[in-house]
Formats: sequence, structure tokens, C-alpha cells
Amino acid sequence: MTTVPSPARARNVLFIMCDQLRWDYVSCYGNKVLHTPNIDALARRGVRFDSAFVQSAVCVPSRMSFYTGRYVSSHGATWNYVPLSVSQVTLGEHLSRGGRDVTLAGKTHVIPDRAGLARLGIDPDSNPGRLLLGGGFHQLDRYDGHAPPGAESGYADYLRNNGYEGADPWSEHVVSAIDEEGQQVSGWHSRNAHLPARVRDEHSETAYMTDRAIDFMRAKGDQPWTLHLSYIKPHWPLMAPAPYHAMYRESDTGAIIQGDPRTENAHPIVQAYRAAHEDCVSHQSEAFVRHVRPTYMGLIKQVDDHLGRLFAELQRLGRMDDTLIVFTSDHGDHLGDHGLGEKELFYEQAVRVPLIVVDPSAAADATRGTVERRLVEAVDIVPTILEATGLDTAPHLVEGRSLLPLLRGEEPPQAWRDCAFSELDYAFRGARNYLKRSPGECYAWMARTERWKYVHHQGLRPQLFDLASDPLELVDRGGDPALGAVRSEMKDRLSEWLMRLKRRTNVTHDLIEQRTEYHRHVDILIGVW
Amino acid sequence: MTTVPSPARARNVLFIMCDQLRWDYVSCYGNKVLHTPNIDALARRGVRFDSAFVQSAVCVPSRMSFYTGRYVSSHGATWNYVPLSVSQVTLGEHLSRGGRDVTLAGKTHVIPDRAGLARLGIDPDSNPGRLLLGGGFHQLDRYDGHAPPGAESGYADYLRNNGYEGADPWSEHVVSAIDEEGQQVSGWHSRNAHLPARVRDEHSETAYMTDRAIDFMRAKGDQPWTLHLSYIKPHWPLMAPAPYHAMYRESDTGAIIQGDPRTENAHPIVQAYRAAHEDCVSHQSEAFVRHVRPTYMGLIKQVDDHLGRLFAELQRLGRMDDTLIVFTSDHGDHLGDHGLGEKELFYEQAVRVPLIVVDPSAAADATRGTVERRLVEAVDIVPTILEATGLDTAPHLVEGRSLLPLLRGEEPPQAWRDCAFSELDYAFRGARNYLKRSPGECYAWMARTERWKYVHHQGLRPQLFDLASDPLELVDRGGDPALGAVRSEMKDRLSEWLMRLKRRTNVTHDLIEQRTEYHRHVDILIGVW
Repeated sequence: MTTVPSPARARNVLFIMCDQLRWDYVSCYGNKVLHTPNIDALARRGVRFDSAFVQSAVCVPSRMSFYTGRYVSSHGATWNYVPLSVSQVTLGEHLSRGGRDVTLAGKTHVIPDRAGLARLGIDPDSNPGRLLLGGGFHQLDRYDGHAPPGAESGYADYLRNNGYEGADPWSEHVVSAIDEEGQQVSGWHSRNAHLPARVRDEHSETAYMTDRAIDFMRAKGDQPWTLHLSYIKPHWPLMAPAPYHAMYRESDTGAIIQGDPRTENAHPIVQAYRAAHEDCVSHQSEAFVRHVRPTYMGLIKQVDDHLGRLFAELQRLGRMDDTLIVFTSDHGDHLGDHGLGEKELFYEQAVRVPLIVVDPSAAADATRGTVERRLVEAVDIVPTILEATGLDTAPHLVEGRSLLPLLRGEEPPQAWRDCAFSELDYAFRGARNYLKRSPGECYAWMARTERWKYVHHQGLRPQLFDLASDPLELVDRGGDPALGAVRSEMKDRLSEWLMRLKRRTNVTHDLIEQRTEYHRHVDILIGVW
Repeated sequence: MTTVPSPARARNVLFIMCDQLRWDYVSCYGNKVLHTPNIDALARRGVRFDSAFVQSAVCVPSRMSFYTGRYVSSHGATWNYVPLSVSQVTLGEHLSRGGRDVTLAGKTHVIPDRAGLARLGIDPDSNPGRLLLGGGFHQLDRYDGHAPPGAESGYADYLRNNGYEGADPWSEHVVSAIDEEGQQVSGWHSRNAHLPARVRDEHSETAYMTDRAIDFMRAKGDQPWTLHLSYIKPHWPLMAPAPYHAMYRESDTGAIIQGDPRTENAHPIVQAYRAAHEDCVSHQSEAFVRHVRPTYMGLIKQVDDHLGRLFAELQRLGRMDDTLIVFTSDHGDHLGDHGLGEKELFYEQAVRVPLIVVDPSAAADATRGTVERRLVEAVDIVPTILEATGLDTAPHLVEGRSLLPLLRGEEPPQAWRDCAFSELDYAFRGARNYLKRSPGECYAWMARTERWKYVHHQGLRPQLFDLASDPLELVDRGGDPALGAVRSEMKDRLSEWLMRLKRRTNVTHDLIEQRTEYHRHVDILIGVW
């Protein structure tokens, strides 16, 4: 691998991720009530990607695509209980080619491949073992959220040192509140979402991880660094500290998007999710949705406020001028739209995310503050960071495309994609039993162009939405006889994409060039008279 | 993994492979000149599969499919210079679940994944390291052929001990001859194919490896064993010891199958192979083909004779009654048909192989001596051996299907496949430069039903042959406007197959059943009031 010439290499990389942040709950993406001035300011400094899609609307598969630059079908970690195979090369390992490493503050949701390590006889407590188990990150403070912080995080001790007592200060304070009758109640119960958490904002998960990032940047001084700051909010449990618990009202929570049951042609998978999953059933109550959305919004507002602190410090340290900044989320949240809770299915609420990239290079000055509408994907982040830091983008392995040409207003080396892809493996979900399917036949793939969203399901009819006439995806036309040609064309796109997935990942393209028609060099003569 | 009930488990497994043995150069497959009585006798004891296809007509990808039970797109070793990733689970590792191992005598062509081991910090000289580098085989004597035997084989010493002198007795004796003028000449030069090798039959590669197998079976006595006896013949260089060098004449070599240039519609890939590859150019001379085919036939006859010795010993040892025997080849050889040499492309000469399986169980008595015409594939061998030895077939990982139901005249648990698939990655071949393609866009996939053979090419038009009206594949109808619906249907089959490839390979289906809707068991409550 060689470094490639670049008009200006980024010295530092700050890759910020939120967990479960819907694209349209940010003001620069159009939200009229939830004002996120710090995220908006970032968009003014860089490019706001308006059509950014995750490779799966589930934490683990989506994140593993962000971290490997490979589609879910290629990295194989298809759902939240599936380990990331030690065979997968992650951002940290790619950066090590350039003598860099990537530091983690927050969540990765990498499921450690302990069986894979044991199979290979690799000591999990060795240095390579630890890196492999953690997805290639140097863990400053790893905390995956929605559970008490473990040994990889200092958060539990931090809470205790700040006076939050108990064996499990997270459960007792961060996701607990005192209700109207004076009882301590849990944030896991949605009925308590309106109560303030028993933690001060400055000691919350969002504040704590922002502090870790600031401490890290200060300590690094002028040394180059790559930091993945990965917030666990606004993911469930939905409980916010004051004042964020009460910043929004039910009347601020906007429309609940829902097709007419008589015309929506709900697909069997949608019916299964609605019927078989507790979170979807509860989100079918308007009262429930109106009760939880304000807290979701408050948690986002809180993230934005702490990002303000972070960006101010970045400015103060002089790092705004030499740091590539990526801001995004691992997926969205249906939040009651389409009769669904959570994520997983392919509605825009789940698969579309905010993505803002600030390229510090002068070459990117012309695009600052612009909006890019071409389709971009989570897999594009790894090659963007590699190219921005002067490294080869490993095209034999990495499936995304560097965004640098788009950030610099240049013509990309090949025509840009006109279709984005996302995947789902629902084998671990109740929907599988509801639909009476076996674990090996629960895949679905989305192919989405500007106009159409097509979803191919194993063993079930496809879904199809005409985003031009039906941008809210209220009518599934997967069975519409008039649109057979569209479905056929979209299925073809999916097939071509499946064929382009990178199978031969352990030899570089340079080696192939060197070894083409090589057999005569090793004294193998076949068909020589 | 648990053992599964089986009517009668095979105590031993003898998995015999030839290298480059065309399916129709065996008498029980219809060859009228080349009489192979020992292979034929095996077919009378078991089932002869008449429609057996390899997953690629190239040594490494084909063998890695035989050894992993996975398609090439899944194991990733797409051509002869591509290492088998340490992440791939091979037959030996599967069998270790049952306390068995698999012993190798002969060729595997596993390209060791040294970079993969180094990346993981695994010592290549450790016991797990050696197994991983060698594809999971315990190497009694590994010899990949067509090069002087290395340290993993005793063959060079054996030759020296038997009076074949020199620093490289293989090059100087086994693939050398004395020509009509008394000069020592090389078997790599086809003009010498008619000359007898400077080695006696009893010291040839085929004899030597048969001896290793016999010694092994004798030494094992009544202990169960699994042996992969993998002959490197009739692969090039084409030079046979007496009397096999002169057993067949030019007049025995049958038709050279070749379409009419005016009507064959030669595909660009066929044109590229014909023009850019030395072996294809030379095979376009009838004189060349007539000169080399008799030696190819002699080498097959020699294999058959030594198989006679092997089977006689198996009988003498009483092992015929408790040994599962598989006989096959890694691919065929065009041998001048279609204007091609060697293999790689998807004509029957290359992708179709002999496959005979003898199941010692009484349950298989009814099928002995029968011919099975359903489509079977190389990936079926691993699950067949696993099921025959009482092991779980690892359906989360293995993509083939056990042949036991077919061997026992039982209804398979699901409808049997009606389409076979094979793949090609020609990035390392001159054809890539001829067609001006880059290393990442040189894939082709075959989908073959009883009636149709369809080949989808990246960036090139498809190929299509109607095997009913054109069994010799003389007219490519990949551009025939009348057959658009057929091509569309075949492409759909290919797409469905691509979607069925196994992506989520590190969690078992049992675990998925246990963990479906598991989050409430780990105190995650989402959407609970």
C-alpha cells in the first residue's frame, strides 16, 4: 500500500456518530421545532449530504459497515447478536498502514468474535487479541449504552465520584427518576419518559463522553489523531436530565405518518413487525408516541448543546483548520410512523441519516455550506477517511467510495452511484416466527434510487414505493401489476450490486497486475510445443 | 454441534480426487476407447452421478469449494494465486468436532494465507498455524504437482532412494524423456508428449501417492480414518511412463468439438481466451491436439490401474464394508474442443466432472450400480461426509447439500436443486488485458439447468446454450432476440442463488432459535409502557 498524493491531507479525523438519530430531527435537515444550531453550524462549514443511507437500519450491521467500508453481505455481522469476524479489516487496521490509530470514546456495538479468536488460538488478552475483539479501536472509553457501563468505561466510577451512589449508579440515577408520588422509577418504562433523570446534565452520558473527547484532543496537542466519538443518545431508554426532559411538548411532536389501512397494502413483513414486536404494538398508540417523542427530541437537543462545547474547544485548540469532521448516525427511529417503533425496516425514518462532512482542505472551500443530493452510503466513510489522510482506499476490499471528490466539487473518477442499498436479517426477531420462516431465509434488501424504493424479500413478495408521487411511503406498490417493469429493473439493479460485492479480498489489485499471465515466470509451460 | 442419528455411520472416508480429469474420459461415463475398469467397478458398488459440476473450472477455487462446502463467492479464493482465508472452515476442522481428522496424501492446492496469519499474529510453525496454512489437512505427504516436490513431500527423497539421481530428480526423470536423437528433453514441451518418462510406472507420482495411501490404511488397522488421496494426474505436464506413453494412438482421440465460426457467435471472453492465451492458441492446431491427447489418456489409464491396486488392498483389509468412498476430479480440460486448451470457461469439458460415491451403509444397497441424473455440485461433498460420519452439516455455513438421501433412495428433505452454479474470476489472465478490463470486474457466473446453460459476465453480454437442441454447445444464443425470456429467467435464478449465499456464518441456527426476541431476557425494554 502506498500513500496517494492529495491536495491537502487532514491531520486529524473526528468521526462523530449518534445512535438512532432520525435524519429529519435536525434543523438543517428541515425540522421546524427542534433547533440544532451546532449541527447546523457544522453543515455551514462543510457539506450536508441530504440523501445518506445506512447499510442496515440495525445498530451492529450498520456500524460494522461504517467501520469496515463494506456492505453487510460482505462483513457478515447481519444483526445485533452476530460477532464481527476477526477476518474483517476495520478502519483502525486500515489506518495502521499509515502509522495512525483510531481512538474510541463511546459506543461501537462491535460484538467480540471470541469463538473466532479461540478457533485461531489467539489470546483475547494479547494486544492483537484486544484490538480484534474491539473492532480495531484503541479504547479510550468504550461504552455501548443501554446497560450499566462495564469495565471498558470509566463512567460508573465517574458517577460514583460525583456523588451518584449505589452498586449500579447508571440504573439508579441515569435512567431513573422520581415520579409524582415520590417513588423511584425506571427510564426503561416509557410512562416515565417525561420525568427528569436523576443525573445532572453535566454528568449525563452525553456530557461524560464529550468530556472524554475534549480531554483527548487537549492531551494530543499538535500530534495527529483520529477519534471516533460515538454518542449513545438519543437511543432508548428515553429519559433525559433537566432541562431536556421538559424542553418539548406533545404539541411539538409533529405528524404521525401512517398510510390508510384500506390502501397501504401493508406487506407481510410490516404486518409481522406490527403484530409480533412489543415496541411496534406500543407505538400504535398515539398517546404513547406523543409521550415519548418529546424526550427523544430533548436528548437530541442535549447532544447538540454538547457538540457546541466540543466544537468551541476544537476552535480554541486551532484544530478546526486541520481536522476532517464527520457527523452522522447509525440509523433512525420510526417513532410510531407506519405503525412501527424502533428501526430495522426500510422506511426513510429508519434507513436515512444525517451526514455532514467538513473537509479542512482549501480544495473544499467552494463547497462549504452546500447541500449534496447525490446518494451516499455508510460504506463511504472509511474510504473518505483513508483518502483524506493520504492512504490507499484498498479497492480490493473496501466497497464504498471516497466522498472527497464530492466535497471538493470535482468530477468523481467514475459516474456516481444512482442507487443505494441496505439490508435486513430478521432471523432473531419474532417476525420470523410470525411468518413461520427458518433462520436461513430471513433476508431483505433495499435498492433505492431517487424515484423508487424497492425491497426484495426472501420468500415474500417485494415492496415498492414511488417516492416521486408518494414521498411518505404510504402506498406499497410491490404487487401493482402496472409496475412490473419497474420492479424488474430494480431487481436487476440489486442483482448487479450483489455481483459487484468484493469476494477476492486478500490480494490487492496491484498484485493482480503484477501476476497476470505469470505462470511462465514460474516455469509452468502449458500448451507450449 | 451434536451428532445426528444415522442409519449406519461410515467408519472411514476415502475421498479420491484426480486433477483435470474430464468427465467423458472414463468408460462408465461413456468413453469407448479409454477403458477404466476400476473406476467402473466403483460405480457398480455405488452411485454414479452423471451431472456433477464443479464450482469453478480452476484448481484453487474448485478445490476450496470441495474442501469448505461453500461456493467460490463465499470462500473468496477465486483463482490459483488467491490464498484461502484463515477464516474459512474446512472439512478437517468440521470433522474435528467429531474427534476425527482428515489426512492428506497428494495435492490440495491450498494457497497458504501467510499474510492472514501474520495479521493475526499466529505463528505459522505452531500446530494451529500449520493446519490453517494447509487448509485443515494433516499432511501425510502433500505434493501439489507440476513443480519439483518440496519439503512437505517425501517424493524427491523417494526418487533418490530408488536411483533417480540429481538435485531435482522430478524435473530430470519424472517429466523428462530421451528423444529420438538421444537428447534429454522436458515433458513441459508438448512435442515430447509421446516419449516415455524417465521414471518407471512403479515410481511415478501416481504410484507413489497410491503407496502412501495403502501404507496409511494398513497402519490404521481398525482405527477410523479419513483420507484425502489426491492425484496430480492427468494434469500437465503431459508425460507418462511406459507403457502408458504409447497405449493410445492419435486415431483413438475422438472428435475435436468445434462450432462453425460462421454460426457459433463466439463470445468476447471465448475470443479473448482463444487469442490471448498460449495454451488455447496451441490447441487450435489439430496436430497438437492429436499429439497430446493420447498421453492424457495414458495418464488416466495409469490412475485407473493404481486405483485397482488401492481397491484390492481396501478389500483385503476389510475396509470396503465400512468406508465411504468418493471419487471425483477438480475440473476437466478442453483439450482443443471449442478452440480452447485447459479449463476455466464453462463448457461441459471443463465444469463437468466424474463423481462416484460408495456409501457402505445397508441403507444404500438399493442404489448400488445406479446412475443419478439430478444436478450435484462440489459443495455437496463436505455435507455428505459430515452426515455419513454422524456430524451436523453446519447449515449456517455449509452451502452444499448432503448426497446421502440420493445415495439411499430417500426423498430429500427439500426439493432437490434444478440448477447448478459455477464461477470464474479471470483477473489474473491475459484475457483481462485483451478485453481491457480492471481487476475488479472480471467475474462470470454459470447457471445450468437440465436444458439451459446461461453465463452472466460482468460488463459483457451473456452466453446461452440450449443443451436440448445443442448438447455440444456449438451455438451461443446469448444474443438471440428470441430467447430473451429464457435469459431473464436464468438471470433470475442466478440472482436468487446470490441471495441464498450464506453471509451470517459465525452463529448457528440453534443459537438463533434460542435468542429470538431475547432482549427482554437481558433487561432491555423498548416500547414498554
